[in-house]
Amino acid sequence: MLRGEITAAIRRALMQELAAVGYGRLSIEAVARRAGVSKTAIYRRWSSKLELVLEVVAAAAGGRLPALDTGGLRGDLALLFQVVTHALRHPLASQIIPDLLAEAARNPTIDETLQRVLRARQQEILGQLIERAVRRGELPASTDPGVAADLIVGPLYWRLAIARTPLTDSYLENLVESVALALGAPDTLPRQRAAPITG
Amino acid sequence: MLRGEITAAIRRALMQELAAVGYGRLSIEAVARRAGVSKTAIYRRWSSKLELVLEVVAAAAGGRLPALDTGGLRGDLALLFQVVTHALRHPLASQIIPDLLAEAARNPTIDETLQRVLRARQQEILGQLIERAVRRGELPASTDPGVAADLIVGPLYWRLAIARTPLTDSYLENLVESVALALGAPDTLPRQRAAPITG
Repeated sequence: MLRGEITAAIRRALMQELAAVGYGRLSIEAVARRAGVSKTAIYRRWSSKLELVLEVVAAAAGGRLPALDTGGLRGDLALLFQVVTHALRHPLASQIIPDLLAEAARNPTIDETLQRVLRARQQEILGQLIERAVRRGELPASTDPGVAADLIVGPLYWRLAIARTPLTDSYLENLVESVALALGAPDTLPRQRAAPITG
Repeated sequence: MLRGEITAAIRRALMQELAAVGYGRLSIEAVARRAGVSKTAIYRRWSSKLELVLEVVAAAAGGRLPALDTGGLRGDLALLFQVVTHALRHPLASQIIPDLLAEAARNPTIDETLQRVLRARQQEILGQLIERAVRRGELPASTDPGVAADLIVGPLYWRLAIARTPLTDSYLENLVESVALALGAPDTLPRQRAAPITG
């Protein structure tokens, strides 16, 4: 294998091993075996298990997202929910991040790195979504991006990652409307319900 | 120690050990050492590490909550958020449950037990809260308890357990209002803003 191929193989093996056994039981030896390289090849690149895990996971979680600008708050939320639903089916989000979050409660270095990576991504994506909605007059200018982030991400994360309740067809549609209302967007349903029949 | 005292000491030691090292690294030997008992004393009561962990955690998480009936939806939400905020500061919720949830992604038995215990509790508490609000006419009769549960629990769980952003003073007040709107409760703010000055 070439140098770059070895590094890529280690990254892949680390992610698979982390999903399979979790941080607590992960050994550099098992990662090396899975990647088909020597332990030395790993220690030449990363000084410790902690450094290896944090660097590889941060790089994987930091990948670029497509632009989420649909021209309207409800459209943006619908698209974001689809992306999040898809992402939460990937082992990175469904197994590795929860495992490291649990580990973070015991390890300040893991905590700090995860917070930095996850929070920066979240602030970037949700910050822009809210800024656009405020600019279009769909949300009040006083909208607190931090509170808004909890309202947008929390329910779907809770359902898929914690309660692990399957989504029904209409669930995401209802969630878009509920979250839009929670954020302070004008209610569009009464207008639909109460539209006068004219002509 | 008496028989009951030994069992209680093992339960306590298990919870402390689980918070400290997580499920993956937990050993019966360390639990025995911490409890000041022999490994045999543990294996006499529980047949395996998995059985020990699940039984003790399920018993701890299944404890009774105070009644949450304040006579109004917003009051009920405010009280529930206080209880959840308090609970999420306890090691059981902040370290042990997240760790086991991560483990559950790899272990169907853990997954099943957690789902059974956590979901039953959630359905009981939130189901009653929503039922009362519907009966009082504060929420539509069509309210889906599952969706409502995500909207009620998700944002606060995300903030405290995942993003780990500290609460500000006004945060819970805002959250009560946002979640009430998300659930479809009538907006009380415009009335307050637009109250005509009479007399």
